[in-house]
Amino acid sequence: MAVYTEVDDEELEAFVASYDIGTLVSAKGIAEGVENSNFLVQTTKGPWILTLYEKRVAKTDLPFFMGLMEHCAARGIACPLPIKDREGRVIRELAKRPAVIVSFLNGMSPRRVAVEHCEPLGGALARLHLAVADFTMKRRNALSVEGWRKLVDDARPRADEVRKGLGDEIAKELDFLAARWPRDLPAGVIHADLFPNNVFFLGNDLSGLIDFYFACNDFLAYDVAICLNAWCFEPDISFNATKGMRLVAGYQRVRKLSEAEIAALPLLARGAAFRFLLTRLYDWLHTPKGALVKPLDPIEYLRKLRFHRSVKSAAAYGL
Amino acid sequence: MAVYTEVDDEELEAFVASYDIGTLVSAKGIAEGVENSNFLVQTTKGPWILTLYEKRVAKTDLPFFMGLMEHCAARGIACPLPIKDREGRVIRELAKRPAVIVSFLNGMSPRRVAVEHCEPLGGALARLHLAVADFTMKRRNALSVEGWRKLVDDARPRADEVRKGLGDEIAKELDFLAARWPRDLPAGVIHADLFPNNVFFLGNDLSGLIDFYFACNDFLAYDVAICLNAWCFEPDISFNATKGMRLVAGYQRVRKLSEAEIAALPLLARGAAFRFLLTRLYDWLHTPKGALVKPLDPIEYLRKLRFHRSVKSAAAYGL
Repeated sequence: MAVYTEVDDEELEAFVASYDIGTLVSAKGIAEGVENSNFLVQTTKGPWILTLYEKRVAKTDLPFFMGLMEHCAARGIACPLPIKDREGRVIRELAKRPAVIVSFLNGMSPRRVAVEHCEPLGGALARLHLAVADFTMKRRNALSVEGWRKLVDDARPRADEVRKGLGDEIAKELDFLAARWPRDLPAGVIHADLFPNNVFFLGNDLSGLIDFYFACNDFLAYDVAICLNAWCFEPDISFNATKGMRLVAGYQRVRKLSEAEIAALPLLARGAAFRFLLTRLYDWLHTPKGALVKPLDPIEYLRKLRFHRSVKSAAAYGL
Repeated sequence: MAVYTEVDDEELEAFVASYDIGTLVSAKGIAEGVENSNFLVQTTKGPWILTLYEKRVAKTDLPFFMGLMEHCAARGIACPLPIKDREGRVIRELAKRPAVIVSFLNGMSPRRVAVEHCEPLGGALARLHLAVADFTMKRRNALSVEGWRKLVDDARPRADEVRKGLGDEIAKELDFLAARWPRDLPAGVIHADLFPNNVFFLGNDLSGLIDFYFACNDFLAYDVAICLNAWCFEPDISFNATKGMRLVAGYQRVRKLSEAEIAALPLLARGAAFRFLLTRLYDWLHTPKGALVKPLDPIEYLRKLRFHRSVKSAAAYGL
């Protein structure tokens, strides 16, 4: 659920007029993106997305995100293209917040992932990884091992409110992962949050990738591991090996995984499940009781994590 | 803040395909309307609004609302036109809810009401009242005197949590209004909720009226009274007589108010303020503590009510 900053209509009209994108005819706050306020802006030249960055996105990270989207769009990745105003600026200010207009992408996020979605998804992820090979800006992954440690410290005293024994389990898991986390897999910029709600399809054709606001430098195969978690479990948290196989096959058709990457995949998948378990746990423990917006269930990711723990090799994912 | 029912993308594609409105290319949940889930749907033929009716709109009222919008649109009122599917049906079902597609209206709701908005607003309201003169369906106003009585009964025991003495004040106000409420002013279908967020402008030109889900049969001048409350107070709850004057002048240019209507206006304005005080009070008292969505402040309408109480004649509104 998005936070909505209200924008004054006259201010918005003037803002849009400072771009070469036609005259404003409509603007609606849309339920897209959890961290920002997003508006679907219609002008005489068509639809555009206006994003106001709320406090959860660091202003200093914006040049990285904008540069990344420009870089990817220029290499044919179907992602939002940040639009320059008449003075050539991308990052502007509106309603006292950093503000950006990006191109509109057709397509809908799949509400239920079908097997047919997984191969194009894998392919798009691999193309993204190839496209960013020559992108020179960097952003540290704040949600890797060191970030997990902070989240475990925060959650541990209260984690048992969510499930008995969870505090100990996350502490042990952190020890396990920290001791074994890979050091030298192929790395680059990863999307790091390529969940179904951040991917658009038209029918079964993938038409867009959005929401690059967790993008960072990390192992490329970790992005695959995140997608295995996000796309290949059924609602009952059983792992759909066909979906996993298709996802990885789609990926490998574009970019071959190395032996080392394949060997590391179960551990990376376990780490990815842990990362989402921890952030959901954080949100769960820090959302006021009775809030209308329910945080996502952390236990879903505990169950995914346990699945990955049980995996003997990447063969379990269809490799 | 809208409630969002999620719609399956495949279901939505099939739903849109059952209309002659082009092929679905995108759908975004939008922050419009408090009672329903609204989606801005883009097709190859342009934008449309899809509404799913949540439980606060009675299914049995939908034929009235749809009939009303069709009737008004046919008479040149800039309001959403319900679209018929290929079988001629307007009210359909999607995601287990009644669902309707209506035409998209350009324009933005004014965030701050300017004097310039008030005359076109008054004119549009009067044109609406003339347009519905031959509309034959009827809907009782559930939020007139009898409805107020229920709300007072509900709020009275706890109203003093909001402001000391409020319980007594609303009980006395109800007695006063019930004893004096008019019985035979010119009546017809009124919008009953024509707040700035339900009116679109392009620059200073009024481009659309939306959200007819409180529309009902009542005194036409009561609609004027609602608009005086909704459009003519400044953020500090001082009454802007210039705005009032322009609103009423815009109205009268299209439909002359009778002597009786003018004489009743202070009482009607008082009743309108009371109605919004009571519904806001209800929401205030029934929203869980800590909810992310804050209910609107009832005290704003207590202050407006007190202003109207102090008014000696309709001259105060610029008449």
